[in-house]
Amino acid sequence: AQEAAVRAQAEAVRRLKQDKADPDEIAKEVAKLLEMKAQLGGDEGKPKFVLKTPKGTRDYGPKQMAIRERVFSAIISCFKRHGAEVIDTPVFELKETLTGKYGEDSKLIYDLKDQGGELLSLRYDLTVPFARYLAMNKITNIKRYHIAKVYRRDNPAMTRGRYREFYQCDFDIAGQFDPMIPDAECLKIVQEILSDLQLGDFVIKVNDRRILDGMFAVCGVPDSKFRTICSSVDKLDKVPWEEVRSEMVGEKGLSPEAADRIGEYVQLHGGLDLIERLLQDPKLSQNKLAKEGLGDMKLLFEYLTLFGITGKISFDLSLARGLDYYTGVIFEAVLLQQENEHVEELVGVGSVAGGGRYDGLVGMFDPKGRKVPCVGVSIGIERIFSILEQRLEASEEKIRTTETQVLVASAQKKLLEERLKLISELWDAGIKAEMLYKKNPKLLNQLQYCEDTGIPLVAIVGEQELKDGVVKLRIVATREEVNIRRESLVEEIRTRTSQ
Amino acid sequence: AQEAAVRAQAEAVRRLKQDKADPDEIAKEVAKLLEMKAQLGGDEGKPKFVLKTPKGTRDYGPKQMAIRERVFSAIISCFKRHGAEVIDTPVFELKETLTGKYGEDSKLIYDLKDQGGELLSLRYDLTVPFARYLAMNKITNIKRYHIAKVYRRDNPAMTRGRYREFYQCDFDIAGQFDPMIPDAECLKIVQEILSDLQLGDFVIKVNDRRILDGMFAVCGVPDSKFRTICSSVDKLDKVPWEEVRSEMVGEKGLSPEAADRIGEYVQLHGGLDLIERLLQDPKLSQNKLAKEGLGDMKLLFEYLTLFGITGKISFDLSLARGLDYYTGVIFEAVLLQQENEHVEELVGVGSVAGGGRYDGLVGMFDPKGRKVPCVGVSIGIERIFSILEQRLEASEEKIRTTETQVLVASAQKKLLEERLKLISELWDAGIKAEMLYKKNPKLLNQLQYCEDTGIPLVAIVGEQELKDGVVKLRIVATREEVNIRRESLVEEIRTRTSQ
Repeated sequence: AQEAAVRAQAEAVRRLKQDKADPDEIAKEVAKLLEMKAQLGGDEGKPKFVLKTPKGTRDYGPKQMAIRERVFSAIISCFKRHGAEVIDTPVFELKETLTGKYGEDSKLIYDLKDQGGELLSLRYDLTVPFARYLAMNKITNIKRYHIAKVYRRDNPAMTRGRYREFYQCDFDIAGQFDPMIPDAECLKIVQEILSDLQLGDFVIKVNDRRILDGMFAVCGVPDSKFRTICSSVDKLDKVPWEEVRSEMVGEKGLSPEAADRIGEYVQLHGGLDLIERLLQDPKLSQNKLAKEGLGDMKLLFEYLTLFGITGKISFDLSLARGLDYYTGVIFEAVLLQQENEHVEELVGVGSVAGGGRYDGLVGMFDPKGRKVPCVGVSIGIERIFSILEQRLEASEEKIRTTETQVLVASAQKKLLEERLKLISELWDAGIKAEMLYKKNPKLLNQLQYCEDTGIPLVAIVGEQELKDGVVKLRIVATREEVNIRRESLVEEIRTRTSQ
Repeated sequence: AQEAAVRAQAEAVRRLKQDKADPDEIAKEVAKLLEMKAQLGGDEGKPKFVLKTPKGTRDYGPKQMAIRERVFSAIISCFKRHGAEVIDTPVFELKETLTGKYGEDSKLIYDLKDQGGELLSLRYDLTVPFARYLAMNKITNIKRYHIAKVYRRDNPAMTRGRYREFYQCDFDIAGQFDPMIPDAECLKIVQEILSDLQLGDFVIKVNDRRILDGMFAVCGVPDSKFRTICSSVDKLDKVPWEEVRSEMVGEKGLSPEAADRIGEYVQLHGGLDLIERLLQDPKLSQNKLAKEGLGDMKLLFEYLTLFGITGKISFDLSLARGLDYYTGVIFEAVLLQQENEHVEELVGVGSVAGGGRYDGLVGMFDPKGRKVPCVGVSIGIERIFSILEQRLEASEEKIRTTETQVLVASAQKKLLEERLKLISELWDAGIKAEMLYKKNPKLLNQLQYCEDTGIPLVAIVGEQELKDGVVKLRIVATREEVNIRRESLVEEIRTRTSQ
């Protein structure tokens, strides 16, 4: 009966694939199939393990790690170029540290089991631990990055790069400074990283919590509804205005007039010209918060002009962002759909970076409520990673997963000792070297290993070479072979594998 | 009343310090004091947070990160020199994946709360996830490293580098190979890393589970007591033989004769000579397991002789190692006490790396029980890190926490725009550059910032320089100043900061 169920499930998967169904759907059914197969187990009465990683997580094999390290390296270079220090915090925090920081999203926090002692939760982002770190160490001034995994019990959509365990790459500037200078640098960082990674065209949407709040006020939204109306606005990148409007009026009880006034604003986006226009707007210009926000937005655009990146920036009144802790500028980078690049359609376009100013968060942790103004950006690696992974697969580019410079090989039998002696010399000289773990490997197998793994050189020891005090160095790509005096071998390998 | 308790605790801490009590003890009482103070809270009615990281964990600030990255970089270089690929796995596994792998230590596993869905646990080491990864992906042949945090609900002793969240740096070779070649490479790796990190003298103890089991058999230990007697032997690096013997006889019910026979063996350590002697031992040589183990140990020493590292290796019959999954060679590297280096006394000497062969673990995950022989080594970073951190503190060496090459500064007011323009050019050219986030910073403050953070160069823009198309470059160390044509600035900075 169980086997019949497995067969039925396999058939279901086959059909979904044939119908080119939603990839998430297929993935889900494949996972179910694998689980059923695993539970069915082997035929030797071995324990029936479910052999899988937890829902919403995955392993990174060597190829994926090679891509991941490329992405990290681009991001870290940029953070260091901007003079950031680096910190790390534990993967879990006291539960109360996270309480009251994420609004509705708090339900997605992973708690640890109470095994006696403190109540703990896995970190949900890197921003709250950062604020806790600043308050705990009384740091009022730092520019730091932090790259680490965070955890959300969200609905995973893995083919689109949405996981329950995922990396965040955060850069933040904390301290009391003149307005918009650190904020502008955060946007410059996003522009540098996305350009460097060559992900195609992108736009960075910018707005300000004060402009949003001022706008809600002049549109006649009651104070008590700011938050919930804000979260409706936040949906505008996914659903059309009409739907958002009916949510505001229907579910959230906003007056139709207020909703229509909001509707006029949130469809606006542009640059300095729009900011100037809104500064003249008879209603908005009367609101203190909005005026402050617009004034700072103007300053921000002046700085971004000096950085030469306004072409990538869009002041967008529909940008709201969910997290509770933002107090000023907010921003989000979105990849634009590529034409004729069907590879990326699978992944879908979407936000790959976001951030903003949060001037009140550190104060929530300080016993005396002392504030440390902060602004920061978080790069979402998984989505970027999904795109690069699929692009690489499509390109059939061969990616090396090791850096080995030379394979130490032998052409005849009984030379294991000589191989061990030579490879040890090479390791001690800092050469990246491998050998096959066989007493008498065939030369053909040794050469094949180089082909498979991309090792460029083979150092071959043989009876004659040992007598002559040389090693035969073979260049895998050209099949050329040269005898090198043993004492020059290290230098020769270095020269041939440099660059 | 609460305040009086805090004062009493503060007094207790003062006394402990005065008495130069055990540092762990002091740390514990200080932590208690801080917690009491935190609970007492501020005087403005703010929420009374306990501002701390969870028990047994800590933050890494920029200075600690700088040391940590040095250590990682040495370890990763070595792993790459030996041709390893890299993988990563999730921080948690299905609970059942970890079940039955760690013997008594299983009680130290962190479980996640059941929030609906799968039952999860934080990983306890990187070996079991590796075995799960191999079985799940049907990989029979890989050489990989994995550097990540693992979690144990152990009694922390943080001044000695024992934490509940800590890094492991693992290198493993999986596959069916000729005997002892991969095993020898693992020992070579330990020797390379410990030498490279300059931690002082060390010894790598080596033994084999088969020799231990054979020894127990010929000493007359009943099969059912192998495990528990093995864990008594494991204590010999901390307590004297007499204590271990009385545990064996008293608590574990071993006959005094058997215990004495074990006592003779476990006090032996040496090299090839000892192996030869034991191969002639009338009792051991009759035991199949012991003979196999000793034969392989001899082969291992031959290979280690070719690697030139037998001076660092001690075949030690008292080495047992706790984990259940080892099946062959086991080893452990121990730092030796330095004379006249009182700094390190605080940290204490102890094991900094360990590993061994586990040929059965992957098979536990395979539905058909197919085995993949493995051998690997795990470097314990926290202890090494504690030593280096204390050494650095004692040396008063100044450690840079950023790589910034140049500070973009101005000597006069109203030059913010010019600074922004110049720094943007530098960033785009790949130069690591910072500026102060002030509209009109004082030159003195800008120079002071360079002194504090170790930035070697200052690029100063001023009215006259702008007119002349130059930038004044100041070398912080010598206070020398030179005018550089703007178009040559990038090249000049690169030259002056290369190497």
